[in-house]
Amino acid sequence: MNKKIVLRDDEMPRQWYNIAPDIPNGLKPPLDPETNEPMGPEKLSAVFPMGLLEQEMSGERFIDIPEEVQEIYKIWRPSPMVRATALEKALGTKAKIFFKNEGVSPVGSHKPNSAVPQAYYNMKEGVKRLSTETGAGQWGSALAFATSKFGIECKVYMVRVSFDQKPYRKSMMQMYGASIVASPSEETNTGRKILAEHPDTPGSLGIAISEALEDAATRDDTKYALGSVLNHVCMHQSIIGLEAKKQMEIAGEYPDVIIGCCGGGSNFAGIAAAFVPDYLEGKKINFVGVEPASCPSLTMGKLAYDFGDVAQMTPLLYMYTLGHDFIPPGIHAGGLRYHGMSPMLSALVRENIVHPMKVHQLECFEAGALFAKTEGIIPAPETCHAIRAAIIEATRDLNDPKTILFNFSGHGLIDMASYDKFYAGELHDYDYPEEDIAKSIANLPKV
Amino acid sequence: MNKKIVLRDDEMPRQWYNIAPDIPNGLKPPLDPETNEPMGPEKLSAVFPMGLLEQEMSGERFIDIPEEVQEIYKIWRPSPMVRATALEKALGTKAKIFFKNEGVSPVGSHKPNSAVPQAYYNMKEGVKRLSTETGAGQWGSALAFATSKFGIECKVYMVRVSFDQKPYRKSMMQMYGASIVASPSEETNTGRKILAEHPDTPGSLGIAISEALEDAATRDDTKYALGSVLNHVCMHQSIIGLEAKKQMEIAGEYPDVIIGCCGGGSNFAGIAAAFVPDYLEGKKINFVGVEPASCPSLTMGKLAYDFGDVAQMTPLLYMYTLGHDFIPPGIHAGGLRYHGMSPMLSALVRENIVHPMKVHQLECFEAGALFAKTEGIIPAPETCHAIRAAIIEATRDLNDPKTILFNFSGHGLIDMASYDKFYAGELHDYDYPEEDIAKSIANLPKV
Repeated sequence: MNKKIVLRDDEMPRQWYNIAPDIPNGLKPPLDPETNEPMGPEKLSAVFPMGLLEQEMSGERFIDIPEEVQEIYKIWRPSPMVRATALEKALGTKAKIFFKNEGVSPVGSHKPNSAVPQAYYNMKEGVKRLSTETGAGQWGSALAFATSKFGIECKVYMVRVSFDQKPYRKSMMQMYGASIVASPSEETNTGRKILAEHPDTPGSLGIAISEALEDAATRDDTKYALGSVLNHVCMHQSIIGLEAKKQMEIAGEYPDVIIGCCGGGSNFAGIAAAFVPDYLEGKKINFVGVEPASCPSLTMGKLAYDFGDVAQMTPLLYMYTLGHDFIPPGIHAGGLRYHGMSPMLSALVRENIVHPMKVHQLECFEAGALFAKTEGIIPAPETCHAIRAAIIEATRDLNDPKTILFNFSGHGLIDMASYDKFYAGELHDYDYPEEDIAKSIANLPKV
Repeated sequence: MNKKIVLRDDEMPRQWYNIAPDIPNGLKPPLDPETNEPMGPEKLSAVFPMGLLEQEMSGERFIDIPEEVQEIYKIWRPSPMVRATALEKALGTKAKIFFKNEGVSPVGSHKPNSAVPQAYYNMKEGVKRLSTETGAGQWGSALAFATSKFGIECKVYMVRVSFDQKPYRKSMMQMYGASIVASPSEETNTGRKILAEHPDTPGSLGIAISEALEDAATRDDTKYALGSVLNHVCMHQSIIGLEAKKQMEIAGEYPDVIIGCCGGGSNFAGIAAAFVPDYLEGKKINFVGVEPASCPSLTMGKLAYDFGDVAQMTPLLYMYTLGHDFIPPGIHAGGLRYHGMSPMLSALVRENIVHPMKVHQLECFEAGALFAKTEGIIPAPETCHAIRAAIIEATRDLNDPKTILFNFSGHGLIDMASYDKFYAGELHDYDYPEEDIAKSIANLPKV
């Protein structure tokens, strides 16, 4: 058998799949925090272009991928689906483990799948400048890459702790022409306020989102771009699963288990969505969403309306959340640090279609190290979570010949500092305490 | 037209192409420096396994790729061939520019094409440990990856200046289980001697090779691996051009110009060799080998027998050389720092089949920056040399619809520090002075 299943450019899907209309019992709409009423596109159009807002609220199951976006996708897409034969052998399992390698993109992760269409729809509506946040740096790099293709300026608010620890990420974004500032920054009211109270804060995604939103809301030439959570982002990522489905067919297989790691949810939605209709028609699939024990929104959070950011500037989203004030512990090195979870993925968990799994960081880095020594590719720390879950599933019963598919969301070549800490013994496991979660959840807005 | 041409795993070539028997007027054999007589495999077998020595001296045109090697190649091979449509547009040229993307390998460069078979043949002969040198870190990472696949220990002597400037490269090699030391080191006689005289030396490839050779020559369990220059290394790289030839056929094109950057020569030989037989049968192809003006072995060196290393431990190789004492200037940031050039490539230049081209580093980094903004992929500094040459060829006459193929030998995600220096204005151009070259060439061994 071929180790890799590749698709030609002309076999790339030409439509995204929008799971919204297929979610049993539907999605709850975003609410306007001032009125607690559903929020229409008008108010959101201050920060998002209409092209994306239409997708955000669309009930269409398939939406055409514009040709200009397809053309850029073809720099790296379709991405290969690979059978992890060497990992299987090392585990001594009869399970077949496949991974979809999204690390082949120019910035090394799945993020450009949404960054490119987001930049495109903004360009179409004449937007000259985009603001965004980035945590580990994957999304910021992706948006910097995408905006460079459409001649749009790009401003990235990068969570302070990453800004200090990831100089190569800054270099990449600068190379694509973006400007980057550590968040919280002196450039926004939100940033200045937080710095005044906590001058040594490591920052958080929730803070960086507030800053990027404020930037967009206060400048006429600027709109805002978000790298996960929202419906349109999850939909753009659906191309991962659509390709994987074709590739599984070519391999003559069908996945019994589908695994993705969960930060804001778009990576998981990307690999899983295309398979959900089969599940709803009776196919047996175990969907596993993996998250870190130090940021356990799906396994320990509450399904409720909450803000997407610290400064309470976003609409209220109905999602699993640890509370918008949540700041993950500094010890946590593996990305996936967001307090909430995409409403789409939250609904799939609510409907018991997706099963969340909580893992600790040491077992994840160990899984990543084993993957590097067997399959040869060094995974991003986020991706290690999916690998860990794949190993758990493949070793429950070594004689069970089940087929596992996981999303290899990115390589780790630009995140080696986290591995250095791991090998130096500087990382340890951390369970976010229940009582702290209870406290931050107590601050949820009343709806 | 498809932007990318991909091949399936089962379309991957199953034999390497050995250009040696096809080189007009042949290759001159390596000489034993003690006798100036041709050096047979017996003496070399202290540091190389017989499987590789047979390839080194083989007159066969095609040599089977072992199945175990094919299996590991399939982690990333066949690599895509991509049409640089966005770069063409930015240049306003009618030329068609194709690149073979070797950056998709797990370590981001073409180097594993030879590291994997080298580790394999050593494993077959029971070798437990390999020593090697690395400059920019590409080869060291590749050998660390390859040895991890065959359970061989790996010791890397890394040129001091890179060791200090490239922490992520060290992390990568450590992750694959290799041990790394800065060269010159306190671990060899050569290293200690040089450190005693020049405690602040930045090191050089010539020194690191001497140390790795001494390591292998003085330990029973250890053999030595070289990442370029030698015939068997060039032959392993031939898979690049063999694939590209198939891909060109699928694209319905044939290259008028073939470009590769030249350090030790294996990267260039890799993309070019498979096309040379067509050239010898009358096909018009312009082969361009690009090198830095600060290390100009092909354009300003002498074709002569010389040592491959500073300590004069290697056989004498007949090659273009700047003298084995040559140390490239510290200002040079773009790799390609070796004093000599592979005998195979040297012979192709001697026969006027390959045309060398000298470029300066600023124009190369500028070319890399343009490539990143157009094609989206950040090239390794070495690769920027090939891109610069491709741009020169594509813009000689903007209306000439010629077809250009260059080897995209690696991505730059682990070498962002060089770009930082470039953007900070800390790099400048440097022509290695003729009188200095005359001096180091005056030290060539008498044959």
